[in-house]
This record gives sequence, C-alpha cells and structure tokens, in this order.
Amino acid sequence: MSEYTQKDSQGHSVGIVEKKLHTSAEPPGELELECGRKLGPITLAYETYGTLNAEKNNAVLILHALSGDAHVAGFHSAEDEKPGWWDSMVGPEKGIDTNKYFVVCSNIIGSCMGSTGPCAINPKTVMPYGLEFPVVTIGDMVRAQKTLIDALGIKRLLAVVGGSVGGMQVLEWCVRYPDMVAAAIPLATTTRHSALAIAFNEVARQAIMADPHWNNGDYYFGDRPKTGLAVARMIGHVTYLSDESMRLKFGRRLQDKSDFSFSFDPEFQVESYLRHQGKRFVERFDANAFLYITKAADYFDLAKQYGGGSMVEAFSKMDARFLIVSFTSDWLYPTYQSREMVKAIKKTGGDVSFCEIEAEWGHDAFLIPNPRLSGIIGGFLYRVFNETAR
Amino acid sequence: MSEYTQKDSQGHSVGIVEKKLHTSAEPPGELELECGRKLGPITLAYETYGTLNAEKNNAVLILHALSGDAHVAGFHSAEDEKPGWWDSMVGPEKGIDTNKYFVVCSNIIGSCMGSTGPCAINPKTVMPYGLEFPVVTIGDMVRAQKTLIDALGIKRLLAVVGGSVGGMQVLEWCVRYPDMVAAAIPLATTTRHSALAIAFNEVARQAIMADPHWNNGDYYFGDRPKTGLAVARMIGHVTYLSDESMRLKFGRRLQDKSDFSFSFDPEFQVESYLRHQGKRFVERFDANAFLYITKAADYFDLAKQYGGGSMVEAFSKMDARFLIVSFTSDWLYPTYQSREMVKAIKKTGGDVSFCEIEAEWGHDAFLIPNPRLSGIIGGFLYRVFNETAR
Repeated sequence: MSEYTQKDSQGHSVGIVEKKLHTSAEPPGELELECGRKLGPITLAYETYGTLNAEKNNAVLILHALSGDAHVAGFHSAEDEKPGWWDSMVGPEKGIDTNKYFVVCSNIIGSCMGSTGPCAINPKTVMPYGLEFPVVTIGDMVRAQKTLIDALGIKRLLAVVGGSVGGMQVLEWCVRYPDMVAAAIPLATTTRHSALAIAFNEVARQAIMADPHWNNGDYYFGDRPKTGLAVARMIGHVTYLSDESMRLKFGRRLQDKSDFSFSFDPEFQVESYLRHQGKRFVERFDANAFLYITKAADYFDLAKQYGGGSMVEAFSKMDARFLIVSFTSDWLYPTYQSREMVKAIKKTGGDVSFCEIEAEWGHDAFLIPNPRLSGIIGGFLYRVFNETAR
Repeated sequence: MSEYTQKDSQGHSVGIVEKKLHTSAEPPGELELECGRKLGPITLAYETYGTLNAEKNNAVLILHALSGDAHVAGFHSAEDEKPGWWDSMVGPEKGIDTNKYFVVCSNIIGSCMGSTGPCAINPKTVMPYGLEFPVVTIGDMVRAQKTLIDALGIKRLLAVVGGSVGGMQVLEWCVRYPDMVAAAIPLATTTRHSALAIAFNEVARQAIMADPHWNNGDYYFGDRPKTGLAVARMIGHVTYLSDESMRLKFGRRLQDKSDFSFSFDPEFQVESYLRHQGKRFVERFDANAFLYITKAADYFDLAKQYGGGSMVEAFSKMDARFLIVSFTSDWLYPTYQSREMVKAIKKTGGDVSFCEIEAEWGHDAFLIPNPRLSGIIGGFLYRVFNETAR
C-alpha cells in the first residue's frame, strides 16, 4: 500500500491510495468462473481517491478500458511523466470531484496491471499462467470487483462509471448487483460486439499469435512477442480514431521530409505515429493479457446472457439511473448501439439520460479532455447524490 | 499465349486470349520510374475478350484492384472452380458486353500475377528482385500499360474502367493520356488516400514485416511469410466490408457450436471466415507485391502531382467523359471523396455522371454482382460508343 497526494486549486491535498486486494487461496477467495474453472487466490489492484464519508454513500467506482489500469488520475511520484489515464475527469473540482466523492478505480482479472492474469504466477505450478489461465468474462471481472467493494465496506455505490470495455463492466455491475448501484454511466460502449468489432479483435489476436516469440503463450522467460503485440496495438489504435480525427491530426503530411522517399521507411506522419504507439505499448502491456481481455469483450452479450435474447428483459433486471454517452465519430461502438440501450431502458420504465457528443476523436473521444463531458457527468453525479444518497 | 472461350446465352463462343507483353531489355523497353530508377525488361500480363473492330474504337481497358489479375472473366479451363474476378460484369451481353467491345484487362508492374514485380527475376542478378525491386507508383503502372495499348495498335480507348486501386489507374490514365481516353469509369475509388487508409495499409505492411520469414523481402528460396501476409489480408478484408455487411453476413453467430468454447480457437463465424480468407490469400499472393502495391496506392495524390494541390487543376488536364460510382457503405473510400471529384470535374466544365449506389457490402460492393451497376455501366458505354466512337 502506498499513499500519494493530488492537490486541488487551493493547494489542499487529496489522498490517492494505491492498494491491492488479495483473497485467500481457499473459497471464498477462489472464484468459480463462467467457463466452469476456478481461479484463486486472486489479487486485484485498485486505487482510491478522496474520502469515503461516514454514511458510505459517496463511492464512485471507475472501470477502465482494455489496456487501462487502476491509476485513473494524479501522479504517483514527481518522476511520473504522465498522470493517470482519466486525469482530466477525476480529481478535486473536476467532473468526478474527489473533494465530494470517494473514487475507487479497479483493475480487472485477466489484466497485467497488478491483478491476477496470464502473466501472474500460477500457485499450482509456481510458473506464470500463460495460456493455462482460464478464459475470463466481463462477468468474472465484475464478480472479482464485487469482493473489493465488499471489502471496502460499501453496500451501495453512488455510481459506476466506465468507457469502452469499462462500460461493459458498468452494465454487468448493474445487472448482477442491482441493489448495489444507484447510478450508472456507460460511455462509448455497447451491450455486445458487432461482427466488425469481433473481426478487428480477432485480427489483432492473430497478429500476436503469428509472432513466433508468442510460443503458444509461453514466453515469460524468453523474448516476448513484441512485434506481434505492436501490430495488434496498431490495429486497435486505428479503430480508436476516426477518418476525421486522423485527417485533422495527420492528413497526408510527411514526417521530417519534403517529398516521398520511395522506400518502406515510415514517411507519412500517421505511419510514424502508429509505429510509435505500437512500440510504446509493448513496453507496458502483456500480449496474453491482450488476448484474454479482447476475448472477454467479444463474449460480452447482455441480452443473450440476461434477457434470453431480449435487451429489454436484461435491462429490466437493473435498478440504476443511467447516463449514457456516445460520440459522433465512434465507429467501433457507434451511437446506434447506445440508442438501442436507451430505447430498452425506456421500455422498462427506467430512468435514463442520453447524450451523443459531437466529437472528432472517434472511440477515444471519452478519454480526451472535454469540458462538456465533465459538466454532464459532474451534473449527473451531483443530482444523483442529492436525490438518492442523502 | 493461350486461347480459351466464353459462351454467350446463344452458345456463341467469345474468345478469351491470355497473353504477356514483353519489352526488350533496352530502352524503350526500359522504363524510367518516378523514383528515378530504371526498370526493364518489363513483362505485363494481360487478357483480351471479344474482338477489336476495324476502326479500333471499341476497346475497353479494365484495371484491377490490389490483389486482382488480368483474368477478369470466364474460365481458363474446365477445372477452374471460379471465373475471373469480374465475371458478373464482363462477358457476352453483360454490363461490359464482349459482343460489342474489345476488352483488355491489364495486370500491373509490382504485382505477382504474371507481370514484372518483386518476385520476378532481376536480370542483373538472375535472382528474384525482392526489395531490390524499385518502389513503383500508380503512374509507373499506367505508363507500362500504355506500352501495351500502343502495342495493340489502339490509338484511343473507348473507356478505361476500374475500381479501388484500379480506379486510381483510371484517373492516372485520364490525366497522362487525355487524347487516348474517350470515357472513364472510376469506381469506389479516391484521388488520394486518407490518413485512415494509409494507416490500415501501414499496419498490414507491418504485419508482413513482423514475420521473421519475411527476412527483409528475401524469402523466395525458403519459407514464405505466410502468417504475416495472412494477417495483412485479414486487416484488408475487414476494411473491404462494412459494419452492416458483417452484421448481415455473420452477426454474432457461432461456427459449428451452440455455445462459447472459452478458448482461443475460432468460434464466431466471422473469425473462421477471416482466418479462411487469410489462408487462401497466401496461396495465391506474394507478400512483397502486397507491400509494393499498397505503397503505390498510398503515394497516389492526383491534386498534388498534377494540380499543384488543386483537384480542379488536375481534372482540367483530362478530356474524358466520366461516370463516377461510389457505394453507401464503403468506408475505405467514402462517397464524399467521389463527390469531391465530381465537384472538381464540374468546375472544369467537364462531362460527369455520378451515382452513389445503395449497397451494404462496403468497399467490396463494386465486385459483387449488381444488376443496377451493370445497367448503369452498360448504358454509359453504349452512349459513349454511339456518340463519340462512330
């Protein structure tokens, strides 16, 4: 456990606490997974920001996307070059105001960011799991997070918030634990992957598996499948942007050149950018974790699992107030998929606000600083807190 | 040279002639390329269909996309499982009617389909070129095709037709040889790649280069970079389809299974389909050729090269009548890019018809049998032939 600080505009310190939850090796520390296998002991990395009030009704759980981690905001140390992945949204006086709310950001099982995943040590073999790690689902991830929220003594979360794969976890929280979620904010997400989204994930997985260093997932003591993972990341990265954002960001501009080099070196700026993104990613992420988390996302199908095929039926099992946000240029989870959710919630008589934000940045738009998004989320949380928590 | 037959609805045979044009090793058989290097001798594979009339004014030149070849229609032999790549459009009484027109379909330099490309023998080393092959442009490809049309004794083509990268060649033909092109039909194409299109090509190239068997392009005597090329093809294939077409074709249906297998085997139909596409492609295509042709497509920039940045200026150098066709679900070369061409041609006072076809099949729509498309192309050719050639 480490404690760090983040300061508000008046210079007041707000505690950031970085922790891990460790379950015991025996049940209930062992989780029975949807695939039928058991996993345990489980470690779950998380961070908290701000203070849980005496009534324990100001907790906001934030859930991250594919390659994210528990470090949602602020700096861990003065040497950190970048703050947490959603620093524009989370902090003192920000959209998710850590002066008011107790923020918990939880990592997921299957990840390589401090929680039990394919690169963790399998206690049975005392070796990294590799492909021995069971295929986990979004439901499994959320059930592991539930043990964390229980351990923190929180009976009901003010809100669960997340974008992309984090948004799937939000929906899963709502349907599994309706009594524990007062409000839900799924951003730039979907109730199930389209064939297109599955296709991109599958091609990315194939790129990893094509790398001989992947070695059927057993590479932790040798060279890692860096080139395969870099290609996988580049594929993902293109899907996170949009035609428009790439036009604005790069167009056909050349990198450090005035004319074509007539070679296969990177020369368009977009080429250099993608290679750079691929390179940076392999330094911080594990190839097997990429396989497991994309697979969990592909499996996720709210209507199939909770509604016998009906989305209305699935949403009827939830009890949260919803704020659903989509982005105009997100072609991975286009707005029509968010509208389907809104329609289904309305049919159940549920409480839902919907906002499609005009944004050029494609699927990644939810991560980009956006005063409008901060305002909408801040206002929604404020209303929910005042109307339900007090 | 081989001759085959294709039959019309009355059982009349139409000759298909498969040929190669070989230039001599010396100039003019040697081509000075845009990169400044020279290439020669050049072999260009082509096929012809139907008969060139006495006036030599009924010739239609068809140009293919990235992985296409000169075999545009009909069967070469009774053993052929599939006809040529545009059999629905080209043949007796079809959209491009080989009873009326003399069809020439030309391969491109840089390809591996019978023409001089990176897998051809470099006469200087008597070894396959590999990466010694110079980086060629769409302009270089068209200049090589010009020698073919000259050799056939055709002074003016009735029409030049092509989709995707073939459409770029159509535009290049029009601007380089305005006197030789009466009409032009660029389909599902663009005057220049967007950053998004470059990005997808670059990621596909990186997938090939990440394969250790690629060996810097020198693999013709050993294992070929099959896994890398398969991933590259899968990336391309996803961009050729659309969200809608993949939903209709695959949705979230499982392959031979009633429920998830919780493994990394292919289980969604779309996964099996993509793996199958990748596998089939490596049997027929060369990885280096993929690199060279995608690079040529990325370089293509009509306004930059012929208009000092102005598309109107570039189109003002052309003299063809245009039929431009785009497809609603093509997100690789979206309709707005075709509309830009139409606008520019209109500004030059040129003759242009434009049609956006409602089609679910994404970029690939131009290859799918479509009576409407056949009708539009057939009608346009008929008018042009009657009004200009006679």
